[in-house]
Amino acid sequence: MADLIKITMPDGTEKEVEQNTKPIEIAESISPSLAKKSVVAKIDDHFVGMNEGIRFSGKFRLVTKGEDEALKVLRHSTTHLLAQALRRLHPKIHFGVGVAIANGFYYDTDDSDESEKQVAADEFPKIEAEMKKLVQANIPIQHQIVSRKEALKIFAEDPYKIALINDFPADQEITIVKQGDYTDLDRGGLVPSTGWIKHFALTSVAGAYWRGMSDNQMMQRIYGLSEWNPENLEAQKKALEERKERDHRTIGKQMELFFTNPEIGAGLPVWLPNGAAIRRTIEDYLVEKERQNGYMNVYTPVVSNLDLYKRSGHWDHYRDDMFPAMTADDGEQLELRPMNCPSHIEIFEHEPRSYRDLPYRIAEFGQMHRWEKSGALTGLSRVREMTLNDGHTVVAPEQVEPEFKGILQLIRDVYHDFGFTDQDYRFRLSYRDPKNTKKYYDDDAMWEHAQAALKRAMDDMGLDYFEAEGEAAFYGPKLDIQFKTALGNEETMSTIQLDFLLPERFDMKYTGEDGKDHRPVLIHRGVVGTMERFVAFLIEKYKGQFPTWLAPVQAVVIPVNYGAHGDYARNIYSKLMKDGRRIKLDNRDEKLGYLIRDAQVNLKTPYILVVGDQELRDNSVTVRFRGSDQTKEMKIDEFEEMINDDVANYSKGSEKVREMLNK
Amino acid sequence: MADLIKITMPDGTEKEVEQNTKPIEIAESISPSLAKKSVVAKIDDHFVGMNEGIRFSGKFRLVTKGEDEALKVLRHSTTHLLAQALRRLHPKIHFGVGVAIANGFYYDTDDSDESEKQVAADEFPKIEAEMKKLVQANIPIQHQIVSRKEALKIFAEDPYKIALINDFPADQEITIVKQGDYTDLDRGGLVPSTGWIKHFALTSVAGAYWRGMSDNQMMQRIYGLSEWNPENLEAQKKALEERKERDHRTIGKQMELFFTNPEIGAGLPVWLPNGAAIRRTIEDYLVEKERQNGYMNVYTPVVSNLDLYKRSGHWDHYRDDMFPAMTADDGEQLELRPMNCPSHIEIFEHEPRSYRDLPYRIAEFGQMHRWEKSGALTGLSRVREMTLNDGHTVVAPEQVEPEFKGILQLIRDVYHDFGFTDQDYRFRLSYRDPKNTKKYYDDDAMWEHAQAALKRAMDDMGLDYFEAEGEAAFYGPKLDIQFKTALGNEETMSTIQLDFLLPERFDMKYTGEDGKDHRPVLIHRGVVGTMERFVAFLIEKYKGQFPTWLAPVQAVVIPVNYGAHGDYARNIYSKLMKDGRRIKLDNRDEKLGYLIRDAQVNLKTPYILVVGDQELRDNSVTVRFRGSDQTKEMKIDEFEEMINDDVANYSKGSEKVREMLNK
Repeated sequence: MADLIKITMPDGTEKEVEQNTKPIEIAESISPSLAKKSVVAKIDDHFVGMNEGIRFSGKFRLVTKGEDEALKVLRHSTTHLLAQALRRLHPKIHFGVGVAIANGFYYDTDDSDESEKQVAADEFPKIEAEMKKLVQANIPIQHQIVSRKEALKIFAEDPYKIALINDFPADQEITIVKQGDYTDLDRGGLVPSTGWIKHFALTSVAGAYWRGMSDNQMMQRIYGLSEWNPENLEAQKKALEERKERDHRTIGKQMELFFTNPEIGAGLPVWLPNGAAIRRTIEDYLVEKERQNGYMNVYTPVVSNLDLYKRSGHWDHYRDDMFPAMTADDGEQLELRPMNCPSHIEIFEHEPRSYRDLPYRIAEFGQMHRWEKSGALTGLSRVREMTLNDGHTVVAPEQVEPEFKGILQLIRDVYHDFGFTDQDYRFRLSYRDPKNTKKYYDDDAMWEHAQAALKRAMDDMGLDYFEAEGEAAFYGPKLDIQFKTALGNEETMSTIQLDFLLPERFDMKYTGEDGKDHRPVLIHRGVVGTMERFVAFLIEKYKGQFPTWLAPVQAVVIPVNYGAHGDYARNIYSKLMKDGRRIKLDNRDEKLGYLIRDAQVNLKTPYILVVGDQELRDNSVTVRFRGSDQTKEMKIDEFEEMINDDVANYSKGSEKVREMLNK
Repeated sequence: MADLIKITMPDGTEKEVEQNTKPIEIAESISPSLAKKSVVAKIDDHFVGMNEGIRFSGKFRLVTKGEDEALKVLRHSTTHLLAQALRRLHPKIHFGVGVAIANGFYYDTDDSDESEKQVAADEFPKIEAEMKKLVQANIPIQHQIVSRKEALKIFAEDPYKIALINDFPADQEITIVKQGDYTDLDRGGLVPSTGWIKHFALTSVAGAYWRGMSDNQMMQRIYGLSEWNPENLEAQKKALEERKERDHRTIGKQMELFFTNPEIGAGLPVWLPNGAAIRRTIEDYLVEKERQNGYMNVYTPVVSNLDLYKRSGHWDHYRDDMFPAMTADDGEQLELRPMNCPSHIEIFEHEPRSYRDLPYRIAEFGQMHRWEKSGALTGLSRVREMTLNDGHTVVAPEQVEPEFKGILQLIRDVYHDFGFTDQDYRFRLSYRDPKNTKKYYDDDAMWEHAQAALKRAMDDMGLDYFEAEGEAAFYGPKLDIQFKTALGNEETMSTIQLDFLLPERFDMKYTGEDGKDHRPVLIHRGVVGTMERFVAFLIEKYKGQFPTWLAPVQAVVIPVNYGAHGDYARNIYSKLMKDGRRIKLDNRDEKLGYLIRDAQVNLKTPYILVVGDQELRDNSVTVRFRGSDQTKEMKIDEFEEMINDDVANYSKGSEKVREMLNK
């Protein structure tokens, strides 16, 4: 008779069952419908396949279709299905790591042992067909525990798997999974058989370094989708299409906003005139907004003596993310700065400060450098050189709360001008981990006081937020503003970070009303993050259809016939340009329809002004509005007034335009 | 009987005289008054003291008081007088090099063998007294040729002189000069005796590295003045005082414009809020001006792959002026850019270009880095990190002339707005050296054509210029605009540089109307040079009294009594600030007179607005105008209109203000 083990059901009841009872048996004993929708089981945190034996006592749970976790299991299972099919088509192909991701899955592959030609997208139909055959065969998926020695033998021909095995801690149990003629390393969490995987598609292939490190082998990462039903698969395909369309790299190329090239270097984007126009508009807007809010704009050096970052602690804790140091002939070491804080602190410390100088607010478009791994670099959103809309406020401890409110109000004002609504973001108050306070700057009273102050400020302002224990930095609590990006991810746009550590390290002080020295609090603040990431975000949010105030080209003037209407077009161009508008005169010798389409599709310009005989006679322009089929003939002054109103209203745009289009 | 030599007099007549005839004898034979004012003689390019023997045949010339060269001789002689006096006071002092400079002289000294305490300014009266004693003694100054071996023996205790001797080429004749008990190395060009040196003063002492290299010993550079008569000495002292007062480092500190400190690093200035306000105003102004002139503003990376500068030739020809390279773990070498041209060329080359795209104008506030020797670093005017108002135009060869005119017109427009007149600068056309054309880019026809085009353009525009053969760069002719600085030096503010080399190196091309590829010409263009040097220049030009549009603080609001008038003052502050003006509210608890004086003297602000009971009642401000004793009570709106008009008129300022002050 087999040993008994004790499993605790989700409702808390305990059951004694024989060791190696299969989850499917337990599920069926509850209800056949439950058995049918159960994808995998869990004992505590360990997966057990539905047809595999339960080995230990513990909390038992069935993962059923409809749960997020079940979808991950399906996608993870699909990576194995893909691998099995690929191994049949490319017998000597090697595999790295296959994982489920937010919208699908990927598996890293390397076929260089076999041929020069790696797996490419044109082979997808063939691979998908092979996968379908395996699904038809409904091959069981079975895990098995093996010794390290056995594992090394099984994967002797698979260098990446061997590398993974060699990295496992000595005491780790190694499990493999067999799926017919295919064997892989796997820790569990797969569907019972290949027949469960029905609605899938391969979508793309991209280069990826083994383990994400650029000095390693470049592998082929094959991406795919996998869903429980055809409707969801269709929806995912559509979403993927949408993501591609919104991808800031695609739009950036189409609108000629920026580029990177290997001659200049990886992760070092060049802002083309159109992209630079957007960036400068944002910078000018923010500098003025900050000025109105009492910030003093400064310029500080992008390179400094390395000692500055030793003192700040960056060199000790952040060195891997810093550029290599420069060593001069006389031994001086210089460093591209990873952050702007030390320079701003030097400004504060340049003169003795008193309580009358506080809050002391400094802002800068501070250029910084981060040594991102080359494999991680992406367009404008992940770069090595970036310019942060950075700001630091030095406050007395009792000013933390009002200053925090002021900064948050500034951020919300800016969001409003960019057209972001409460639906776009959520507030996260990040506290220290109360169970592990030793990990943090050591001053309990300060933490309690500061966390309470932030919470009180949020409550006072009537803002919704969620609290995240353990998300604080070492040196203080913070507020993160989390945006859902157009591509469905969540990222931090803005942060208000309290810092109690740097004031200590740099011995910052101010003279209080009592005439004595006091230690201030430093608040780090980013309103829109880096220009690079923010513009990438905006491109994707607006799909390149920037509101007029941000559009790189606000209007394109097209003469119907350059010979007859060129001078008139040039006059309009000059008039609007002198008024501060960004105008393009399109004088190319092409068909009118082609020029209009180019301005609409590629430049995505808000207004196209066509001028011909009639406009010349009437001193007018015929306006095409972006996103509307309507055209309107307008006097030039009338148009000028309208576009200026449009610009002045930021992302909200012009009421006049809307009225005109509704007429 | 002595040998005869033949000397050619300035009027061309030839004379045979005995070898070792003294110039004083020849001078006296012409006229006693000539003898009296002759300071030194020259045979060809060699100096001969008035009481020394002429050794060779050659062209003979007497250098007389009133000539620039005579003044240099006097100042050079004063360095020896200084050294003799110092050696008496500090027997073990060592000397480096002593030279005559634009307004006086200096001698580098090192007394570290003798004591910890080096020569300091408080010792100047004592040193001057000792110098005067030597003048009284009227000690003859006599040169003597010695062998290298003798020289090394004579200066055995003088390490710097030994180093100089060891650096002389093997065939160089070594001359020493004896002046009583003092002996120095010297190649000639001194007055006959110490009695000639009468009107002198020591002015300052500063650290200077031996040979200007920061890994060498730091020496004490003692500066002084020396003139032929007391009036000129007084004038030089006054000019020096004026230079000190105008010195951008002094004013920069007083107005809190910028600073450097060793924590951040030498030559890496930090722009404080006041300095940053000036800089940003200039940048905004220039970006808009450039936009109106068809330039496309861009942002390009400050760091690039080193290969880019290998291709451009900077690494080969300019390496010593570049920052040390950074070497990443994967072996990639990165470099802080020394110039922006390669990045701008990459932008041009990013897309295929046709004749329709030309002239292709790119502009950027491009941050660059130069590894200046630490001894050469000075405030904002000589720095290691700088931002250039850079621009590049790519043109077809036939567009060189009109584009050159356009650029020059832009530069002149900008000068006008900054209040520079034709008196402030002169144009220098820099050609290749016709006697040494091999030193230059090899295309005779191109040089002839290009130089003629620049000259024709200048003539067409009716501008005065001077031509400088041999001043062109390797790669093309240029126009330099030479400014006389407030401190009396001449420096290049703007350059329009033709470049035929980089288009070759980067294989730049455009499709002509003929459908074929053509090689364009690159024009480098700086309107106002680097922000650092330009702002240093402006500080000295305006003596910190910036015209309102550039003033860091355009108006200071001071309440007579903060309790009673603080709110009213704050309202005025907010109203003007929202209107875009840079306003300071001075709420310090100090006497009114003190606050007014601080705003006048330190901030040098154009308008001070005092508000008390009367102003509160009248809804007005009482305005103090910079540089005038008058005060005027004005309605707030009236003042606002006036200051806005002042700003809108750039450096010309407001007619309204002038009218008001003349009333």
